[in-house]
Amino acid sequence: MSTTPPAPARSTQVRLAQRPVGEPDDATYRFETTELPALADGQLLLRVVYLSLDPYMRGRMSDAPSYAAPVAVGDVLEGATVCVVEESRHPDWAVGDAALSYSGWQSHAISDGTGLRRLDPAKAPISTAVGVLGMPGFTAYAGLLQIGRPQPGETVVVAAATGPVGSAVGQIAQVQGARSVGIAGGEAKRQALLDEFGFDVALDHRSPDFADELAAAVPDGIDVYFENVGGPVAREVFKHVNLYARVPVCGLVADYNRTSAPEGPDRLPGFMGLVLRKSLTVRGFIQNEFTAAHGRDFVRDMSQWVAEGKVRYREDVVEGLENAPEAFRGLLSGRNFGKLLIKVSEDPTL
Amino acid sequence: MSTTPPAPARSTQVRLAQRPVGEPDDATYRFETTELPALADGQLLLRVVYLSLDPYMRGRMSDAPSYAAPVAVGDVLEGATVCVVEESRHPDWAVGDAALSYSGWQSHAISDGTGLRRLDPAKAPISTAVGVLGMPGFTAYAGLLQIGRPQPGETVVVAAATGPVGSAVGQIAQVQGARSVGIAGGEAKRQALLDEFGFDVALDHRSPDFADELAAAVPDGIDVYFENVGGPVAREVFKHVNLYARVPVCGLVADYNRTSAPEGPDRLPGFMGLVLRKSLTVRGFIQNEFTAAHGRDFVRDMSQWVAEGKVRYREDVVEGLENAPEAFRGLLSGRNFGKLLIKVSEDPTL
Repeated sequence: MSTTPPAPARSTQVRLAQRPVGEPDDATYRFETTELPALADGQLLLRVVYLSLDPYMRGRMSDAPSYAAPVAVGDVLEGATVCVVEESRHPDWAVGDAALSYSGWQSHAISDGTGLRRLDPAKAPISTAVGVLGMPGFTAYAGLLQIGRPQPGETVVVAAATGPVGSAVGQIAQVQGARSVGIAGGEAKRQALLDEFGFDVALDHRSPDFADELAAAVPDGIDVYFENVGGPVAREVFKHVNLYARVPVCGLVADYNRTSAPEGPDRLPGFMGLVLRKSLTVRGFIQNEFTAAHGRDFVRDMSQWVAEGKVRYREDVVEGLENAPEAFRGLLSGRNFGKLLIKVSEDPTL
Repeated sequence: MSTTPPAPARSTQVRLAQRPVGEPDDATYRFETTELPALADGQLLLRVVYLSLDPYMRGRMSDAPSYAAPVAVGDVLEGATVCVVEESRHPDWAVGDAALSYSGWQSHAISDGTGLRRLDPAKAPISTAVGVLGMPGFTAYAGLLQIGRPQPGETVVVAAATGPVGSAVGQIAQVQGARSVGIAGGEAKRQALLDEFGFDVALDHRSPDFADELAAAVPDGIDVYFENVGGPVAREVFKHVNLYARVPVCGLVADYNRTSAPEGPDRLPGFMGLVLRKSLTVRGFIQNEFTAAHGRDFVRDMSQWVAEGKVRYREDVVEGLENAPEAFRGLLSGRNFGKLLIKVSEDPTL
């Protein structure tokens, strides 16, 4: 009997059409459908189920000097993905296996297995591999514990606090015995900080009384400010930092679309004066700096905390790769509500 | 026989007449001569030999929130001093003994011995107790080794490099096997960095080609920037920091007389972006944070390095307490050349 060879796989891809100036618009992206070659021995075909959208991707779209090379114009945009194996000529992978990969903004990809991490749907929903049990969770865990080092009774403040990093920061702080103050935009998010994530205090930075509310929320000052937003929120927070406060800096989403230095006055000398007067530790970081030393502890601790309900998470799932550009714009302006995922195709494990 | 009681001691004092706005001027100070009471049992009369002038004193003249309480208007200005005992009714102190004390801007003071540290003129010139073997030396030692942590082959940059902190930073960096780049104002100071202190590279920040000269001086980038000046020099330096660079912040003398935030653009967002992209550690500190843990090591190490000629120091001695205000203005604008001391009276140990 002869077998009919499978029809060639096709991948719908989102490529970087041109580097954005300011907020990425439709001209930033080019959608293409490409026919993938037949699998060679040792290769497998991945179907992307979830594409993770994260603020750091804005940096990859620019060619400003950064910690990672930019995406080349014309290339498929980068991003972590959760995939299932759709065809395999690889000895270690079977059809239906789930994997964390970095397939980027596309529907299908061919892999030789390098860099894939097997996911067990029985242990946790596979989507968490790009969320609470993945890069965002580890960013919170490593930055808070290795740089922020909250002590029992101290006050930890974090903004973008319903996001995957911020929500984990506040909850891990509580596991350490610290008091968590979360800041988010809008009353619905503020309420979620209390009801879903159990923050000790929740603030809406859009409130006209935000400055006073923040002051009232931190009567003993701030010992750790986990910086992931920058901008006016950070400005208020810095008014309340204590002597020897620690400031892990993992993101500045308020500034990512900025095209030039904002108007004056120049706040840098005042900030450096504060660093001096308060003996602050301000420390930028990318989570992968800590992977070798703390990656295993993270998987152990965070899996346990999630299982025990000590760390909860929220996902904001947008259906369809075609909606990724608009969802990404929303991410940079705070319109997402939880870990933003593009559901590219059906999740067979649910 | 009856003894004639000694004539009452008098102290010439410099008091804070009013808080300065911007650069301290003559109206900041009030000179007074006060008759001191007779000594009680357990007291001693100190004659001030050297008054140390240090940039941090500018902060004490202001009532802006800081790490130390300001000097009250009307009080004698604070400052470290090297003194000799002129009369004693204290069992531990004899006439002629030398002591480190915090007698402030005055010629004589009564003490009960609290906080005095005995100085041995046979071991080191007593003036070094407020210089290379004192607070400035410890600032360099603790900040560089505990925060900067230079590794062999790394590049350490420091400005105000002929000053007591900067010169020690550069030389301790070399003891650690790092490369030292010193920045100072003017050709004479630049030359002293090479000839007196043995920096690997010396730069004059007043040179019209300073930016290019700095770039050429750090072909492998900067791993440690010991920040004690701020201002435009720091701005150039930050263009060259490496991934994971450390920035101990011990002073911002360029900004101490500033009365308001300078004109824009606002450089703070760009600076925070740099902290993030380069995973920088920016850490403010005051040396006394480290005294308990590292003070003994400092005395041992630094005494040895000075004795071996590995760390050299330079003093800028101004004669007469009446010249302290002008000398202090010079300190804030970089006119001193070495550790600035006011010689208030004769040094009997020389």
